[in-house]
Amino acid sequence: MVLVLAEIITVGDELLTGNTVDSNSAYIAQRLTEKGFWVRRITTVGDDVKEIENAVREAISRKPEVLIISGGLGPTHDDVTMLGVANAIGRKLKLCEDCLERIKEFYEELHRKGLIDDPTLNEARKKMAYLPEGSEPLNNTEGAAPGAYVEYEGVKIFILPGMPREMKAMLESEVLPRLGERKFVQKKFLAEITDESKLAPILEDTIERFKVKIHSSPKGFGKYIGIIIFAEDDEVIGKVIRYIEGKGIKFREGW
Amino acid sequence: MVLVLAEIITVGDELLTGNTVDSNSAYIAQRLTEKGFWVRRITTVGDDVKEIENAVREAISRKPEVLIISGGLGPTHDDVTMLGVANAIGRKLKLCEDCLERIKEFYEELHRKGLIDDPTLNEARKKMAYLPEGSEPLNNTEGAAPGAYVEYEGVKIFILPGMPREMKAMLESEVLPRLGERKFVQKKFLAEITDESKLAPILEDTIERFKVKIHSSPKGFGKYIGIIIFAEDDEVIGKVIRYIEGKGIKFREGW
Repeated sequence: MVLVLAEIITVGDELLTGNTVDSNSAYIAQRLTEKGFWVRRITTVGDDVKEIENAVREAISRKPEVLIISGGLGPTHDDVTMLGVANAIGRKLKLCEDCLERIKEFYEELHRKGLIDDPTLNEARKKMAYLPEGSEPLNNTEGAAPGAYVEYEGVKIFILPGMPREMKAMLESEVLPRLGERKFVQKKFLAEITDESKLAPILEDTIERFKVKIHSSPKGFGKYIGIIIFAEDDEVIGKVIRYIEGKGIKFREGW
Repeated sequence: MVLVLAEIITVGDELLTGNTVDSNSAYIAQRLTEKGFWVRRITTVGDDVKEIENAVREAISRKPEVLIISGGLGPTHDDVTMLGVANAIGRKLKLCEDCLERIKEFYEELHRKGLIDDPTLNEARKKMAYLPEGSEPLNNTEGAAPGAYVEYEGVKIFILPGMPREMKAMLESEVLPRLGERKFVQKKFLAEITDESKLAPILEDTIERFKVKIHSSPKGFGKYIGIIIFAEDDEVIGKVIRYIEGKGIKFREGW
């Protein structure tokens, strides 16, 4: 099985102080895995241009096929992700006129609904329309800040907002359609075995023989071991299951 | 304000596939922040010796005062964190006799309770007693696998289990007492302002003037902006609040 690699970077001081649990990276990881990518690393950094720049540069140097970055696109003083990414890939920030127009409409709409006092496009709001030069804007159906897509040294880089509702909508409509077909499948099983350590040699043998990835984790002492099998297709997963069952382990599908 | 830096590494394929949300890193980050550390980066890698080794080596090269690693200490084929850390710091794994004794007792106890069929110390269970040479074992009151503490190139490295109950107990009893005194305080406020972008210039000015860190994030359009102020002590926070209120912003404590 050839793994097609992806990485995720989430940005936000609130993640580093533990004030917010980073459910975004798990969501993105799950959707990427379902699409057949193997997420190799998740990195979280704060709202700091240099930290973002470093993390992005390091991720690119590891040459994943896809790099998804989420967070730090808003109008506040600490929303600096676009600049951090631009620095990492040696580009300037450039005004996206269409984005500016959409941001303007967004605030006018909020104003009409009575949600904000002032619809003026001040500097902080304008800032959101600046994307790394050469990138394609990604439409934000749920908020003000556009995302961006840019390819650099063979890495498809997507920059998404951090608000979960905005991130999820953009991931579904703008990111996943650009990523192509499923490369592997994953399936979860419960192994009826009271002792994880007895399963280890059987799994090692199976991984070697079928060239699959298997993750196992305890689901309570004396009950089950949770197993996730990653393989090229369902046929291979069927073979793996029959092989392990032949070693005396019973399986139930799902957790 | 001088920031004392920390980093966190969480290990587990289940985090990279999105099958589990990484609440451990948020928990550790929160406790470190409360103790006065600034968590600069959180990295998640899979159950892969080389990936763990790379992530640990990179974290050490950034010279945090503290590095906390969680996950991958169990008996299964893919629990390889101790080896990954040992490789990163150029040590061998070495049997900890006391740990082996405790692991033996742990399984005998489970056996007595009827939770497992076989209390024998097989290879997979013995594996958990191997720690990087020169490290100090950390007691696991909630499970079989011991943690480890080792100082390397000025970085205090703690290796903890991934099961939240085990990790939390070890963090409280074995890690935090070794970390010394509080270096800064954080306090949360809600700013009554309908538009985040108007707050930005005021916050920038405040950060510059008082040498504090301030994180802001929207809490719903037209209602509040959530603010976290990080400062040396409560006195400085009081001054910051009075200064910002002088600019016409109203505050409420807490979220």
